[in-house]
Amino acid sequence: MALALDAKADEGMWMPSQLPTIDKALREAGYRGNPKDLADLTKAPLNAVVRIGGGTGAFVSADGLVVTNHHVAFGVIQYNSKPDRDLITDGYVAPDRKGELPANPDYRLRVTVGFDKVTDRVLAGAAGKTGRAYYDAVDAASKALVAECEKEQGYRCSVANMFYGRDFYLVKQLELRDLRLVYAPPRAIGNYGDEVDNFVWPRHAGDFTVLRAYVGPDGKPADFSPDNKPYHPPSHLQVAREGVAEGDFVMLAGYPGITYRHRTAAEFADQIEWRLPSSIDVLKQLQGIIEDQGKADREAGIKYASQLQSLKNGIKRFSGELEGLERSDAVTIRRDDEAAMLAWLATQPDAGALKPNIDEAMKLIAAGKDVRERDLLIGLLSSQTQLMRGALAIDRLSVERPKPDAAREAGYQQRDEELIQSQLKQAQRRYDPRVEKAMISALMTRYQALPAAQHLPEFDAVFGRNASELARALDRIYGGTGMSDEATRLRLFSASSADIAGSKDTLLAAAHALQPALLRVEDERKSREGDLMRLRPAYMQALIGYREKQGRAVYPDANSTLRVSYGKVTPLAARDAVTYGPVTTVAGIVEKNTGKAPFDAPKPLLDAIAKGDFGQYADPKLKAMPVDFLSNLDTTGGNSGSPVLNAKGELVGLNFDSNWEAVSASWMYDPRYKRAIHVDMRYMRWLMDKVYPAPALLKELGVAP
Amino acid sequence: MALALDAKADEGMWMPSQLPTIDKALREAGYRGNPKDLADLTKAPLNAVVRIGGGTGAFVSADGLVVTNHHVAFGVIQYNSKPDRDLITDGYVAPDRKGELPANPDYRLRVTVGFDKVTDRVLAGAAGKTGRAYYDAVDAASKALVAECEKEQGYRCSVANMFYGRDFYLVKQLELRDLRLVYAPPRAIGNYGDEVDNFVWPRHAGDFTVLRAYVGPDGKPADFSPDNKPYHPPSHLQVAREGVAEGDFVMLAGYPGITYRHRTAAEFADQIEWRLPSSIDVLKQLQGIIEDQGKADREAGIKYASQLQSLKNGIKRFSGELEGLERSDAVTIRRDDEAAMLAWLATQPDAGALKPNIDEAMKLIAAGKDVRERDLLIGLLSSQTQLMRGALAIDRLSVERPKPDAAREAGYQQRDEELIQSQLKQAQRRYDPRVEKAMISALMTRYQALPAAQHLPEFDAVFGRNASELARALDRIYGGTGMSDEATRLRLFSASSADIAGSKDTLLAAAHALQPALLRVEDERKSREGDLMRLRPAYMQALIGYREKQGRAVYPDANSTLRVSYGKVTPLAARDAVTYGPVTTVAGIVEKNTGKAPFDAPKPLLDAIAKGDFGQYADPKLKAMPVDFLSNLDTTGGNSGSPVLNAKGELVGLNFDSNWEAVSASWMYDPRYKRAIHVDMRYMRWLMDKVYPAPALLKELGVAP
Repeated sequence: MALALDAKADEGMWMPSQLPTIDKALREAGYRGNPKDLADLTKAPLNAVVRIGGGTGAFVSADGLVVTNHHVAFGVIQYNSKPDRDLITDGYVAPDRKGELPANPDYRLRVTVGFDKVTDRVLAGAAGKTGRAYYDAVDAASKALVAECEKEQGYRCSVANMFYGRDFYLVKQLELRDLRLVYAPPRAIGNYGDEVDNFVWPRHAGDFTVLRAYVGPDGKPADFSPDNKPYHPPSHLQVAREGVAEGDFVMLAGYPGITYRHRTAAEFADQIEWRLPSSIDVLKQLQGIIEDQGKADREAGIKYASQLQSLKNGIKRFSGELEGLERSDAVTIRRDDEAAMLAWLATQPDAGALKPNIDEAMKLIAAGKDVRERDLLIGLLSSQTQLMRGALAIDRLSVERPKPDAAREAGYQQRDEELIQSQLKQAQRRYDPRVEKAMISALMTRYQALPAAQHLPEFDAVFGRNASELARALDRIYGGTGMSDEATRLRLFSASSADIAGSKDTLLAAAHALQPALLRVEDERKSREGDLMRLRPAYMQALIGYREKQGRAVYPDANSTLRVSYGKVTPLAARDAVTYGPVTTVAGIVEKNTGKAPFDAPKPLLDAIAKGDFGQYADPKLKAMPVDFLSNLDTTGGNSGSPVLNAKGELVGLNFDSNWEAVSASWMYDPRYKRAIHVDMRYMRWLMDKVYPAPALLKELGVAP
Repeated sequence: MALALDAKADEGMWMPSQLPTIDKALREAGYRGNPKDLADLTKAPLNAVVRIGGGTGAFVSADGLVVTNHHVAFGVIQYNSKPDRDLITDGYVAPDRKGELPANPDYRLRVTVGFDKVTDRVLAGAAGKTGRAYYDAVDAASKALVAECEKEQGYRCSVANMFYGRDFYLVKQLELRDLRLVYAPPRAIGNYGDEVDNFVWPRHAGDFTVLRAYVGPDGKPADFSPDNKPYHPPSHLQVAREGVAEGDFVMLAGYPGITYRHRTAAEFADQIEWRLPSSIDVLKQLQGIIEDQGKADREAGIKYASQLQSLKNGIKRFSGELEGLERSDAVTIRRDDEAAMLAWLATQPDAGALKPNIDEAMKLIAAGKDVRERDLLIGLLSSQTQLMRGALAIDRLSVERPKPDAAREAGYQQRDEELIQSQLKQAQRRYDPRVEKAMISALMTRYQALPAAQHLPEFDAVFGRNASELARALDRIYGGTGMSDEATRLRLFSASSADIAGSKDTLLAAAHALQPALLRVEDERKSREGDLMRLRPAYMQALIGYREKQGRAVYPDANSTLRVSYGKVTPLAARDAVTYGPVTTVAGIVEKNTGKAPFDAPKPLLDAIAKGDFGQYADPKLKAMPVDFLSNLDTTGGNSGSPVLNAKGELVGLNFDSNWEAVSASWMYDPRYKRAIHVDMRYMRWLMDKVYPAPALLKELGVAP
């Protein structure tokens, strides 16, 4: 379908295939290449942009160098840190290729090699069905496609759902399993400002890390081995020798995780009025638990450092999202927009075809409120714990394993077993019984306070109905489990249902007892999702038509597939009389520096700033050494590490953060406030040249001084 | 002496008599009047600028209307507030002249009518003397001048010391005692943002209040009486019909209290390294005491509201001063500047005459460190208490009263008795025994921890040497005093030394026992001050000479005499990538508004903003309703309420705050950061026209819509 285009639209996470459609706008904005060259995400240059960790990265050398954010590679740095070798604090510069340090075994890089529309095959079996049957039909077809695709070793495949069930694409990705740490700045550079600055422009973080991808001697994906060789990517980006300045064209490619811009007005209201405030409240409680225990026990503090950072990020992001959506008056605007769309639809010939499905979708969405509190809490029980999550996974695996692989639940198929196993291993570094018990106690205390209609008998049986029963249950469950032992966990990993039924391990037994409730909840959710997948395309169809009438193109909501956005380096008028310039400089590092974390820039950096030897890296206009810059590019979570390119397609920055005023953009793009924050490649190059020198690396990047 | 002038200097609190000297610079900056017309502060227009409360105000009508800040008139508003008439919360619009409410009896307005150089007479008796004798000679001569001047009823006179003992001026001021409240916005407008926004641009406060001065039927100053008539000032300022915009010329006249810009390098170091951190620490403790007691007892909270506000202001100002001086690297800069001055002096013919005095001054300043902790604490004991301060004043009065008036200590002369008496009355509204005991306990606990060399036997005897003795002493002193009774206080006011010696009042007895120590400390201080007054002119002479060589004029440090500064409406590049625009608008009020204090704009204001009926008051460029604006005018405490004039000399704003980055300007003017914050007269006029209408008042101000 040819979409009408509003060249003035600030927002847009475009599928590469949409770019030729908006050719004119792209050129007018300043792009000097041919938009047609960007239409295929499996070809150069877009195939240099990869999924890595939970974010995005890009190949930047023929020998498999990858740049991404320090925070995207943080797990790799943490994994390689030991009491006598603190890479978090000190950073790391590999002395040579032999000195490149293997990442944690579950760290992955994926290169997209296929992206094909498979809507007909996915929906073929779903026609005429509803609810769970519709869901299962889509699921079965998707799994069949994935299984067929993954027959080829070393590939991961997935089916991407565009426009909420309207279009489906089969995504095929080469998965590399041997990543190595090449260059990381100290955390006090990579994460300068930490939680205080996170989401708050102006920022001064050097949030980048360089890794290298390796493959087996046969050139195929392989686990780490000393015999492996650097991977030769099909294409790589060229690091720019020049920087950008205010007003310059920039574009960004990456794997934005999820947006909700095309959700219904009722979903907007639920998010703003209930979900965000409730989530902030419970996550803050979990944060407090980790912090309190971390103070009492340094070892526990270290184990939960990564989870704590992720909780803090979540809380800050949710708070900013809430504040931003309220400031943008999102509930009212979306409500009025939807009402106008429905009024317009009523005048259209296809109203009769679309309206019933739209009405039905809205009823279903309204019904979702009934158990939302319970669903939030049991979701956190499986996502925020270590041993409990492991036990639940083992029990679920025992249910799924006997099925034919294609019939197994996503996430519990053969292809997922390795990941689950490595998570079970990893728990050794990330688990402390007191922290986990305190967290479950907090979640289940909230659950116990819910009205009876939200209760699940299995949960009541396992955790009791009041505080003292809960305390006794947790003491019993965690006192009688052997799962804190890694060997035991790995042995249990392959347990059958019968093994588990007979097991005396108290934690595994508890997980087994909870499982029927979780399966029931899952079934309800899938049934609802099946219906929504069936019904929402009508809503999207109406919306696309209505936008077309308004002269606006529509991109699908983000879904972790490769998207491109373009815009320019842009200042921010954040509040009355407050304007933020779009480029920060090292002067700001000195201004912020208190000597105490998170404003404790390392001495070599402060000395180098004082020395002022910025040479070719200084900004010619500002006559100062740049650190980060701000653009109006359309981004969301998952865009961490996304390469930012100049008009010539050269790498000028890495996306790493949003401004506080824009974190609500996952729901609503407000052009007054939406900005993305990037680390300037000039800062990275200066650090590599003058502060923590890595001359061979600069040479390999093609920017030797 | 003709001073060399640096037209580019950003700083300057000029004596009006200096303005013709800098005629060219003033005109180049944009002033359209004749600087000669500003040379005499006793003539129009500068005699419209008055001392009021602790700040500055200006006559704005022929019938004695005065504008000043809401916070300068806050005591007047508080005095008129009762449980059933909360003018603090609701504001006040006098329905007519009969409805104008009398200020608290000790509230004063002073119009400067004489300003004459009297250096020769002041120093005549001091020649050849040192220390206390020098001090006493200056003091006696000053008092004689003041007494002679005050023979005329209704006038207050003082001797102003310019350039630290080099020049003296006799200042004669007409003192008006009947001020009345005409128009005050609600506190949520007048002090919008309160402590959160205080010293932090961008601000959104309508910090103004309108009073009217009254005199007796004979046209002479008089206490409040219903028979009094409006005062007809010799001149008044015209409120402008237009506003100012970025880059526009502005000037300001007012009574800046005190600056330290010409202090020695050692004094800078003492301030930054000891005095500011120590003061912040102890004031925070006093603030905590008031807040804790105020939570427990609402009545106590109300009584100490004014003192709490003043403590909070102090803490914030000290913290900002410290931060700013550290940011400006003031210790180093002043040290290097002084060293360069001394090096230059060594090459000058008058080095021999000046150097010995400079050296001696520096030795004296260094010796001041020995008892600085003790002096800070006993200073707070007399300034931050209510009843203890009263008892100390009564006791001191009994010592001073028998002396000839001219020989009495300044502050305890006949002319001061009324003020002391009214403070004793006022204590009724501002005293709570638990708060005062807790505050003294905090101060004396710190005192007890000082090394023996700083101890005073009298203090040890009265307050004991340890915590339990202190607690017992305070219980005894406050348990056995009748001074919490207003009648008792007023009776004791005229007590003789013999009365006091025989009094059984425990608080009065304690004050009497402490007095010898306070007198001894005072004597030491005066001796030091006498010597510094004798010696510092040499330092100033050297500094003026050195600045002349640098092409820079020197204004005297501020000393509560009328000064003029000029500059322009100026944005602020506060930090790396952060720029503040110089004009705020009502949009910022809405942005900041949370509905909870201090961001709880009244409904009539929010409604009027939503309505958007700004008419002639909106800024034509911004197309928005302005609230406050920012300039680079040179100000300090005491400049609160200072009129800000445009190039034509019309009133465009009232100074009310500084930016956080500039509160260190009392010691060092850093042109990068020094800004002053003014309420825009357009905002005042709009409030008076559209929000809390006062049409007669607008007419009297000559700006009827």
